[in-house]
Amino acid sequence: MGIITLLTDFGITDEYVGVMKGAILSVNPDATIIDITHNIDPQDLIQAAYTLESSYKYFPEGTVHIIVVDPGVGSDRAILAAEAFGHILLAPDNGVLTFFTDQKILDSVVRVDNSIYFSESVSQTFHGRDIFAPVAAHITKGVGINRLGTPVDHTSLVRLDIRKPYISDSDELIGSVVSTDRFGNLITNIDESSLERFCRKDIKKKAELWFRGCCITGLASSYESAKPQSPLAIVGSRGYLEIAVNCGSAGNHFKAGKGDSVRIKLSERTED
Amino acid sequence: MGIITLLTDFGITDEYVGVMKGAILSVNPDATIIDITHNIDPQDLIQAAYTLESSYKYFPEGTVHIIVVDPGVGSDRAILAAEAFGHILLAPDNGVLTFFTDQKILDSVVRVDNSIYFSESVSQTFHGRDIFAPVAAHITKGVGINRLGTPVDHTSLVRLDIRKPYISDSDELIGSVVSTDRFGNLITNIDESSLERFCRKDIKKKAELWFRGCCITGLASSYESAKPQSPLAIVGSRGYLEIAVNCGSAGNHFKAGKGDSVRIKLSERTED
Amino acid sequence: MGIITLLTDFGITDEYVGVMKGAILSVNPDATIIDITHNIDPQDLIQAAYTLESSYKYFPEGTVHIIVVDPGVGSDRAILAAEAFGHILLAPDNGVLTFFTDQKILDSVVRVDNSIYFSESVSQTFHGRDIFAPVAAHITKGVGINRLGTPVDHTSLVRLDIRKPYISDSDELIGSVVSTDRFGNLITNIDESSLERFCRKDIKKKAELWFRGCCITGLASSYESAKPQSPLAIVGSRGYLEIAVNCGSAGNHFKAGKGDSVRIKLSERTED
Repeated sequence: MGIITLLTDFGITDEYVGVMKGAILSVNPDATIIDITHNIDPQDLIQAAYTLESSYKYFPEGTVHIIVVDPGVGSDRAILAAEAFGHILLAPDNGVLTFFTDQKILDSVVRVDNSIYFSESVSQTFHGRDIFAPVAAHITKGVGINRLGTPVDHTSLVRLDIRKPYISDSDELIGSVVSTDRFGNLITNIDESSLERFCRKDIKKKAELWFRGCCITGLASSYESAKPQSPLAIVGSRGYLEIAVNCGSAGNHFKAGKGDSVRIKLSERTED
Repeated sequence: MGIITLLTDFGITDEYVGVMKGAILSVNPDATIIDITHNIDPQDLIQAAYTLESSYKYFPEGTVHIIVVDPGVGSDRAILAAEAFGHILLAPDNGVLTFFTDQKILDSVVRVDNSIYFSESVSQTFHGRDIFAPVAAHITKGVGINRLGTPVDHTSLVRLDIRKPYISDSDELIGSVVSTDRFGNLITNIDESSLERFCRKDIKKKAELWFRGCCITGLASSYESAKPQSPLAIVGSRGYLEIAVNCGSAGNHFKAGKGDSVRIKLSERTED
Repeated sequence: MGIITLLTDFGITDEYVGVMKGAILSVNPDATIIDITHNIDPQDLIQAAYTLESSYKYFPEGTVHIIVVDPGVGSDRAILAAEAFGHILLAPDNGVLTFFTDQKILDSVVRVDNSIYFSESVSQTFHGRDIFAPVAAHITKGVGINRLGTPVDHTSLVRLDIRKPYISDSDELIGSVVSTDRFGNLITNIDESSLERFCRKDIKKKAELWFRGCCITGLASSYESAKPQSPLAIVGSRGYLEIAVNCGSAGNHFKAGKGDSVRIKLSERTED
């Protein structure tokens, strides 16, 4: 028993992911191992941070989530273990946990330095295999975080500078595209609660979304509510505003992607 | 215990597949989850239908097969649960089950509308996570199909118009390429039994396959029976006629793919 | 119980891998199945041989490793089962086990020809599904290798001609790039012990690596020990010399890949 998820930038062409799973099963042959994705763009910490935040909560409490997007492997960057809402996170101290540190929801943070839970020999280039995998497996066998290493002060952790949506001087909500998914949906950094605070519920249909010279009016409730090949705005499954095209790709339609900016304005403000 | 297979067009770069697995394990942490593929071309229902038909039967009876190729998510399209030869199928009512409805082998079809087996909150954009995953997990824990929703009449289900091979006026068997696999094998819609009925067993070696101006004579019994880089025709592992190139790619060799047509004629008809 | 790994050139777009897993679970529903990779270049036996050698040892003893890179499927090539350091290997007799035969570490080699462990019907095109999968599953249920078929003499097995590093007349160690990983690291055929024998430990820092007109001096101990975007040489996680670029891709930097040659010379030889 014990569930371990893997989130890496290793790709699936090399043997790296398989080898990590071997190292896990060598410690705990009964572990259940689930891939979140291995296709994070190499060393893209922000993409990894968003993906972790969008996935961990759908697993049962007690799940151990390994994140290995780790350009600093072999340097003196720390490896962290921490708890958040009953989930255990295991990640390099390079900012991939920024959403958790920003929301102050990490408990029992330690620097993982107790080598009795590591593989017998630790390489300089593949801590995923030699440290993350066996440590995670030991956690699923009952080893508490506090036994993994030295407590670390929450405030000392590395944070990424993740752009948040903001309200401009001309009273528009400004965000940007964070990633494009397989369907060509453009996922922004505007979360549902920022959107609701800005629009207020009852006038959501009057919101105008401006993107690359086009205007989309109102929020759709499903992809099919727009005509085939027509663009729409919708709160997607991650809980963030997405720009989509029904039965098509918004990425292609708008020739747009990561970093492009989005403006939301209210066509008329109601008084209340 | 309990095996669940996943067949989607989600790709494996986003976290969507991982999150579905989290939702399954949250209901049944002992489920065994197997990926069929997540690389169905976005919203290609015919490709999904063929892939399902080619894969489900290799699993043990009792396996639950989830198909989420679902452009209509969030609209009023139904989600179906049904039984076929002891396997349980869970799919949108959009035609991905056409091979089963055509052969009239679906039992106990229901519209899945009993929300007590859904996730607590159901999004408009990701029923894979919020409905398919938890419902499948409940089935592996013993919930019968009849408890999932309202019985549906078999004849009312959405069907795809899947092209079948046919015999032309000039007495040729006409089919077309359905997909190209990773090796460049061109898989047609001509199934082995249609082929045998047309050719009759003893004269299979005299069949001439015409494809893009070339003629291949006879059926090969293995890829290696042709010279390296030479084309051949063979009944592939799906049970359909394939055009292949030994140690090469028929897709590249013929610059051909989905939709290209294939003609089979008999160089001489024997009397019998 | 029982772990089975899969190493194939099937890709993950078709249903082939999923179907193999179904065939395994039909024999042993409790097997744990791990993907090493399915993205071996079609029919690239050398790449498969390196990947197997780099991965198998990280799994627990008793693991069954299936290798299906098998251009000869359906011909009279044999399927082999053998033991190495407590691991069981199941592969076509086409050279993918060359590293094991070269090191003379294979025990109990048999030609798998006892069809009672095969699927009921065996196709000519997909032995992965019809032979490898069920045989591996039977092994995890306790069937010994000796019951799978006829003993084979070790020396009769097919071997690949895998290029080894060598010392040139001008006293340089000559190797070549074997593969490029997802990060653009160029992995050579120079293993750590050949390197140490050539350089001797204390002068490793004086080694000069020449590659495509550039010189890299000394061995790095981590990727980060070079400046961002600068090249370095390092013994990678496979135990082979790699050429890397910190936070970048050596493949792109040097416009280099498989087959490119690497020379190592010692700027000054110490006497000892």
